[in-house]
Amino acid sequence: MMDKIIRDNYQRETKIIDAVYPRTYRDSTIVHSDRLQCVYDVFTYTGDRLNDEGVKMNLMFLHGSGMNRFIWDYYVAHLLDYKLGAAINKIVTLDQVTHGDSSVLNRGKLGVGYDWSDGARDACKVAQKEFYSGLEDNSDDIINIVVGHSMGGFQAMCCGVLLPSLFDFIVTIEPVAYSPNVPNNSNVTVLPPKFFKAIASKVEDEFKNEAEYDKFMHERSFFTKTHPEIFERFKETERINMEDGSIRTKMERRQEMLCYMTLHPTSYWLLDGAKHIKVPVVSLVGGIATWAPKENQQVLQKSIPNYTVDVVPQGDHLMNIEMPDEMLKRLSVHFTKFAKEYQSKNYDNSNKSVARREEIFEEIYKETERNRVKNGKPVLAKL
Amino acid sequence: MMDKIIRDNYQRETKIIDAVYPRTYRDSTIVHSDRLQCVYDVFTYTGDRLNDEGVKMNLMFLHGSGMNRFIWDYYVAHLLDYKLGAAINKIVTLDQVTHGDSSVLNRGKLGVGYDWSDGARDACKVAQKEFYSGLEDNSDDIINIVVGHSMGGFQAMCCGVLLPSLFDFIVTIEPVAYSPNVPNNSNVTVLPPKFFKAIASKVEDEFKNEAEYDKFMHERSFFTKTHPEIFERFKETERINMEDGSIRTKMERRQEMLCYMTLHPTSYWLLDGAKHIKVPVVSLVGGIATWAPKENQQVLQKSIPNYTVDVVPQGDHLMNIEMPDEMLKRLSVHFTKFAKEYQSKNYDNSNKSVARREEIFEEIYKETERNRVKNGKPVLAKL
Repeated sequence: MMDKIIRDNYQRETKIIDAVYPRTYRDSTIVHSDRLQCVYDVFTYTGDRLNDEGVKMNLMFLHGSGMNRFIWDYYVAHLLDYKLGAAINKIVTLDQVTHGDSSVLNRGKLGVGYDWSDGARDACKVAQKEFYSGLEDNSDDIINIVVGHSMGGFQAMCCGVLLPSLFDFIVTIEPVAYSPNVPNNSNVTVLPPKFFKAIASKVEDEFKNEAEYDKFMHERSFFTKTHPEIFERFKETERINMEDGSIRTKMERRQEMLCYMTLHPTSYWLLDGAKHIKVPVVSLVGGIATWAPKENQQVLQKSIPNYTVDVVPQGDHLMNIEMPDEMLKRLSVHFTKFAKEYQSKNYDNSNKSVARREEIFEEIYKETERNRVKNGKPVLAKL
Repeated sequence: MMDKIIRDNYQRETKIIDAVYPRTYRDSTIVHSDRLQCVYDVFTYTGDRLNDEGVKMNLMFLHGSGMNRFIWDYYVAHLLDYKLGAAINKIVTLDQVTHGDSSVLNRGKLGVGYDWSDGARDACKVAQKEFYSGLEDNSDDIINIVVGHSMGGFQAMCCGVLLPSLFDFIVTIEPVAYSPNVPNNSNVTVLPPKFFKAIASKVEDEFKNEAEYDKFMHERSFFTKTHPEIFERFKETERINMEDGSIRTKMERRQEMLCYMTLHPTSYWLLDGAKHIKVPVVSLVGGIATWAPKENQQVLQKSIPNYTVDVVPQGDHLMNIEMPDEMLKRLSVHFTKFAKEYQSKNYDNSNKSVARREEIFEEIYKETERNRVKNGKPVLAKL
């Protein structure tokens, strides 16, 4: 079903890019000079749905721990069921370096230091490459939006700190940022053994056969409540069939466990930077979700200047894969609202003669001088 | 003199790269979709001075407001007079987008929103491109160092926040970060008219003739006390001879004034991020300098985990161009000390068999699990 919609409406290309180098931690790779790669899909809209206002949008979707880029295919297909306030131009979904097809390429190179912000740097690199190529003159009529779930939500916010104007709008779904931690001197993530074991019981990467893989996925994995179409897609895209009939997942179990052990200290970097995010952030929060403490939303709300919480009453932490239709409905509302606000600003991005450019510069320079040279006693800010 | 040393010891190449896009502020350019460019020089050491220990170093130099990349040529030449603890591999000097040759390329495109951190993003892009190309297997034996003066010192620290492992060592000379400001609601830089005029009187970009240019540079500019060789180099590299015999500087006067009007709010972003800088920072501080208040160093010292202040008793704010020999002597001491510490870590970066890589991973994974799964009551950090 979704495959046909995607085929009929998009050109889908799978691409490979060098991941950002160097990584934050030396132990991100076994040999420090090794280069990692990132696999991503670009869906270029080929249909004829036009937006009334002529504005286009690029979208990037970032998955959470243990997932892969294919969980978003359902979104790529069914966003077309909604009015979005802008016409889709390109959609990018990518596998983090330790996840999905990226992890297959990087096998043997990966170490233990997975820094979540490195995933955001990779996302920025891909967006810079894909969202600004092949544009016509008036590229201001393109809105770039990033949507991230859980760890991907964290990374979506990191993008707003690293490269403040790359994405015009950030949407997080159950973002993880401020989390309880066993106190320690290095400010790294330390988990209680009981919690660690509870997660570990839901993560496996080797199965004797098809039946075992199926049983695990349906009964014991994180995916037991996943929407059937997304479930099937994930199950099929994450498996590797071994010669002896056994099945492995693309992501290694230990790499998934490392995701849960590596939120801190980068989370403090994000929380210190969050107040400098310039663009609006909308956070879809699960009403029955307990993965992140309530303080997580409170801190983000307090820190990010333009932050809106949208509570999904029946949603749990994995609501992006468990109730995608509800998510799509809400995303379409937020996208449309944002696109309207964006258009109301009427950015004039037409090309200009040299003389006109000089006039404009002189005008905005004078205004800047007026705004930035004023009487008053200079004082040091309170930090 | 310095030209001959450079010719005899380096291959010098001038290169152009697309500056990072998008810029932080929409008004960085007149037309938002315009792309800026960055001009830089790469000096590749071709001499036969070998380092005893076999370690090589890459260096990047970042200039302050109103200067250009050529002020560092003296350093490129005379670093060779000192023992550095490592053999020079490449040195990069670059013109910020509103400065020097970059500003000539970008003329007509530049707006008023010069964000200092964008300059750091450009520096990171250039370093990523230049410092990791053409390496042999054991690239861990290369140390990357960034040295920045004033605004360039600010940008050197920004690099440590943006891409924490790109530079192994950050050296700032009279860095500007925490500065008094006329309070205002937007947290932007606001300067008192008197101070603004005092700066403005030292900045001109059009001269009737050679004599006027000379007179201004020698008597009224910021450069009156500059070391003679650097002074001549700057004067020659910054001038444009117009057809009518008049002289212009490459940098536009208004762009230089904008540098002074754009420290805030990005300075707050840096100060919030400073505590997350992972690498050592050494700050050369002028003993008689008053450009930055004493609180500037106090805040940086308090924020940056590994921060060393090295006071230069007779140094003023522009000591990098006024007393370059003293700077070179001190830089050589700091470089040597850092190189020794780096080597004492004995990073093993030899390539490894698949089996050996698996063994190493298993070992460091187990250690990570031991360190990150421990009994204790998880609590939320105080923010």
